[in-house]
Amino acid sequence: MTSTLVLLRHGESTWNAENLFTGWVDVPLSDKGETEAKRGGELLREAGVLPDVLHTSLLRRAISTANIALDGADRHWIPVRRDWRLNERHYGALQGKNKKQTLEAYGEEQFMLWRRSYDTPPPEIDPGDEFSQEGEPRYADLGAEMPRTECLKDVVARLLPYWESAIVPDLLAGRVVLVAAHGNSLRAMVKHLDGVSDEEIAGLNIPTGIPLRYDLDENFKPTNPGGTYLDPEAAKQAAAAVASQGR
Amino acid sequence: MTSTLVLLRHGESTWNAENLFTGWVDVPLSDKGETEAKRGGELLREAGVLPDVLHTSLLRRAISTANIALDGADRHWIPVRRDWRLNERHYGALQGKNKKQTLEAYGEEQFMLWRRSYDTPPPEIDPGDEFSQEGEPRYADLGAEMPRTECLKDVVARLLPYWESAIVPDLLAGRVVLVAAHGNSLRAMVKHLDGVSDEEIAGLNIPTGIPLRYDLDENFKPTNPGGTYLDPEAAKQAAAAVASQGR
Repeated sequence: MTSTLVLLRHGESTWNAENLFTGWVDVPLSDKGETEAKRGGELLREAGVLPDVLHTSLLRRAISTANIALDGADRHWIPVRRDWRLNERHYGALQGKNKKQTLEAYGEEQFMLWRRSYDTPPPEIDPGDEFSQEGEPRYADLGAEMPRTECLKDVVARLLPYWESAIVPDLLAGRVVLVAAHGNSLRAMVKHLDGVSDEEIAGLNIPTGIPLRYDLDENFKPTNPGGTYLDPEAAKQAAAAVASQGR
Repeated sequence: MTSTLVLLRHGESTWNAENLFTGWVDVPLSDKGETEAKRGGELLREAGVLPDVLHTSLLRRAISTANIALDGADRHWIPVRRDWRLNERHYGALQGKNKKQTLEAYGEEQFMLWRRSYDTPPPEIDPGDEFSQEGEPRYADLGAEMPRTECLKDVVARLLPYWESAIVPDLLAGRVVLVAAHGNSLRAMVKHLDGVSDEEIAGLNIPTGIPLRYDLDENFKPTNPGGTYLDPEAAKQAAAAVASQGR
């Protein structure tokens, strides 16, 4: 038995466009992001990769991307599951800050450590900060699990229980699963799927809006390691562009 | 204990605009319909009526209306349940037909019987008809329950099991429930809630895009019979317009 998992990183948000650290701040897609989401839906339809169930984060940019892509693929009617464990990495005190200014203020080394090290989170956000999500109704059930900052290691730790308890059961039921999420929650998932080391994951970028298909064996290991982008050429170009962000 | 149920009829679709019988044909919202959905979201936000869970049909015009309205009310992240039992009435062989031409071809009496009688369905649609949904993946589980035509009585019969098994449990859990659906599936629900007779229901029209709030007692009977529109003036005007459709 094999199963099909499709990962989709949301299109450009208004804050991507402004080069701000976003994290859990719930910003909308930009016009470009909506166009990317439409293209994602076309790629699904053209490839005949038709999701049976959708998993999203609780953030608008992933939810809208999924809504637009699924509408385009005529799969808008499939069941939906949402969970905070698919959210973007919480960027702590950097949320709302300009990436270029942060780079200039803290220097290349500290900047890259916060952006790319596996286990160094940024400073915690103050719960009273205008860009804190403390107290938002959608996170009411989290209690002590509500993060104030996260490194990628933290994202892996909070993602895996959802992978096991919610995504794997859908795969076991033979469903084609679409996960619409974020740069870092999807990197965490790819790290798990492909067994990427703590060091190597720093260099792995997932482009926006291009569905990434994984064919999984009965142990949920990829028979196509690294997955297969539904538009490989565009993925190559986009990954290079992401790597140069903040410059 | 009381609970809150909000009914939202989808905004204008492209086929409403063209005056065609739609039923289960999966047409999109028109631009006007999208504007109506946005207004629905504003009304929810202004009234502080914040849904905790969404129930929709499997049809794009209800799904899009809910997506747009919830995004506007900052409730895009709530759990979603979808079911064919919330679909519009299946309009049988009339699906895809022009309302004015149908009126002229069959006469006032037959036309109004199909549109408004409680228990006279239109002729069945041929499974091979271009406007039949026979064989669509989203209805794969229906088996013998797949309708080829429906009268309002049929809609009530297939809606009530969903009301009992899916909506009532959410109300019992204390959730504010939003049902985004269609003229006739919502009329069926209102008939049940308010105990409207088979005769009186013919005269009841639900306007598009205006949330209708029901406050329910512990027996799920309305403490505000007939419900409360979040924009009562607009509802009054819109209901009058719906009643004159097809003329």
